[in-house]
Order: sequence, then C-alpha cells, then structure tokens
Amino acid sequence: MRIGELSKRTGVAVPTIKYYLREGMVPPGERTSPNQARYDEGHVHRLRLVRALIEVGRLPVAKVREVLGAVDTPAGNVDKLLGTVQKAVLPAMPENAEPEIQTAAEQEVTAMTTALGWCTPDDHPATSALAATLVTAQALGHTGFLDLVRRYALIAEQIGVADLDYIADHPGIDGMLEKVVVGTVLGDTALLALRRLAQAAESTKRYPDETGG
Amino acid sequence: MRIGELSKRTGVAVPTIKYYLREGMVPPGERTSPNQARYDEGHVHRLRLVRALIEVGRLPVAKVREVLGAVDTPAGNVDKLLGTVQKAVLPAMPENAEPEIQTAAEQEVTAMTTALGWCTPDDHPATSALAATLVTAQALGHTGFLDLVRRYALIAEQIGVADLDYIADHPGIDGMLEKVVVGTVLGDTALLALRRLAQAAESTKRYPDETGG
Repeated sequence: MRIGELSKRTGVAVPTIKYYLREGMVPPGERTSPNQARYDEGHVHRLRLVRALIEVGRLPVAKVREVLGAVDTPAGNVDKLLGTVQKAVLPAMPENAEPEIQTAAEQEVTAMTTALGWCTPDDHPATSALAATLVTAQALGHTGFLDLVRRYALIAEQIGVADLDYIADHPGIDGMLEKVVVGTVLGDTALLALRRLAQAAESTKRYPDETGG
Repeated sequence: MRIGELSKRTGVAVPTIKYYLREGMVPPGERTSPNQARYDEGHVHRLRLVRALIEVGRLPVAKVREVLGAVDTPAGNVDKLLGTVQKAVLPAMPENAEPEIQTAAEQEVTAMTTALGWCTPDDHPATSALAATLVTAQALGHTGFLDLVRRYALIAEQIGVADLDYIADHPGIDGMLEKVVVGTVLGDTALLALRRLAQAAESTKRYPDETGG
C-alpha cells in the first residue's frame, strides 16, 4: 500500500509517518520509484505499536526509539529487555528530597524487598521511585503509608507472576519482546484503571448510606 | 514565619508560593502589614501537599485546585471525594479508537466487573481507560492481554481493600480526605514501582542463566 493508505489504516497523519520514518522508528518501505514506496502489514503493526507507546505510555519520541531499538535487537534476552523497557517507562517520581533522607528510604525499600526474597539489582530506578513516595508521605506526616506499601509489595508479587506468565506465553522471541513492551505500557494503565474501579466498588460496599445505596 | 522562611522550609521558590496564594491553592497568611504576612505549619503542610500532587501526581494546576477544593469542603464524604480525586488523577488513555469498538470494549469491562460483584458507576472514567487498553492490545494482535487483565482484576480487589483500610484508619474526616488524595497519587507511583521490582525479581528467578545468576 502507499503511504496514504497506511495513514488511513492506522489513523496516523502522513507527515507524522514521514517523521517516524526519518527517525528510524518505522522501517522504510520498499522503493517503487524515487518518490514513492510501498508499505505492508508490518508497517501497519509497527505504527500501531509506536502510537500505543506514545499515547498510552506517554513516552517521548527519544524513549520510543530506545524501546523499539531493544525490540529490534534479535540478540536481546527477556531479562535485559525488561530492564530497558522498565527504565524507559518509569512511574512519576518526586525529586526534591534531601540526599540523606532519600538514601535512608532506599535502604528501607531494599530491606523490604530482601525480606520478601526478591532478587533485584540495587540500583534499580524503581527503588528510587518507591523510596521517593515514602519520603513524600513522611514529610506530609502520613506515617501509615509505609504499611500500605508493605501490603502492596505482597500484592505486587502476584502482579509480577501474572506479567511473566503473560510474557512467556508467546509464539517466538520476537513476540515475547513485543509483549514485554506492550504488557508494561498497557499493563500500567490497566492496573491503575482497575485500582480505581476496585476502590469505587469497595467504597460503595463500606459506605452504602453516603451514596444512597 | 515570613514567606522567605516558608520557601526555605518547603523548597518552593517565593514567586511560586505567591502564585499558589493568588490561585487560592494555599490559604492567605495572617496580614502583619500591608506588604507582609505571617505563615504557620499549616502553610508548610499545604505547600508540601501541592508539590506532591504536581511532582508525583503530575497534575496540572487546574486539577490540583479541583482536588484541594474537594479536600477543603468539610461536607464532602469519602465516596464523593474518591470520585473527584479519581477523575482528576486518571491513568493515561489512548483516544483514537472507533466509537463502536470502544463501546464494545467498555461493555466487556462492565461484564467483567459485574461478574466480580463490583458495584461501580457505569460511566466511571476508569472503565473507558481500561477498555481503551483492550482495544489497543487487540489492534496489535495481543489477544492474551484480556486474560492478563482478568488476572489483574482479582489482584486489584486486594488493592481496593488495602486502599480503603488505609483511608479508614484516620484521626478525623480532614485526615481521611487528605489520605484519599495522598493515597491515590503516591499509591499509583508506589504500585507501579513495586510492579517493576516484582517483575525483575520474577524474571531473574525464571531466567537465571540469562543474567548470570
């Protein structure tokens, strides 16, 4: 198909497609003349993946390129790709903590994950992000937040198992690599959406009078 | 304390504090002269809360104002405040789905939550967000994602219970309202960070050879 049809099929504007092509985020089409190229279903799929990363994952273009680079590297293994994707798609993180307070909170996180038997790299960026939430909660006097995080950790173990089951159930290494990307990005959104629905359901159950139920 | 000390205590620049005061996000200090006001610990606390919503929750100023308005309304009940905060702090959501496909996916989500016995409003924005992830996964041919979401739903029930326990354990309605805000915003970040650590731990367990472990 020509670039116009590719645009129609994916809902991505032609100038945007041309930009992705220039940036190497979408592989070039097959040249049919100096000014024309032909595209196939692989291009449709890749464009959808790029849009999912940008719209659902809210990744900046540089991060999308990084993640796709990992997907396109056939030698990549699951554990390494997971690390690359995790670093690209990190949760928001407060940055104004004093270094000593932040370091103490990171040690608290490491002590917690070690007690759970989790084998994770010491410098994992998620450790800093989690520690920063503890620092912020502490500064607001919400001391109970640490206990909530401890309960979350036990729940997160189940999420990790579900995620790795999802990734492992694949038709080949290419499919597996893409699933890491899609599962991380779409999974974050799905999980937070389900958290809100579950909260609403639990809240209605506990406070039926207030909602007229 | 004067505004200069308030700035020092919270790490928020004086012009930014003045902006929050003008916008009504921080209550005015006690006037001591036409050009000076005195601030107290309540202002320190409120500024930290504003920064947490902006830095951790990545909320735009208009949303922060909306959430704080709900916190400052003494008549607000838990269920209503939860709804306001949830709407302000929604997960990212793709928007390019065709209306019929999106509607079908929303019906699928509602069928799932109904089967779980969750009582949630039909028009909850999290339903659309979750449906949009299903549409995106489907467009990418990742049909297994629906099964992952079903597993997530069972896990999310436990998150909802933990969250409502956290909110209920409070010294008064003011504390409870603030906990909804802090718990939602910091909780999202904590949960996604723990998801990554749990994934890394599970990945290392399953693929030890690849990481040299």
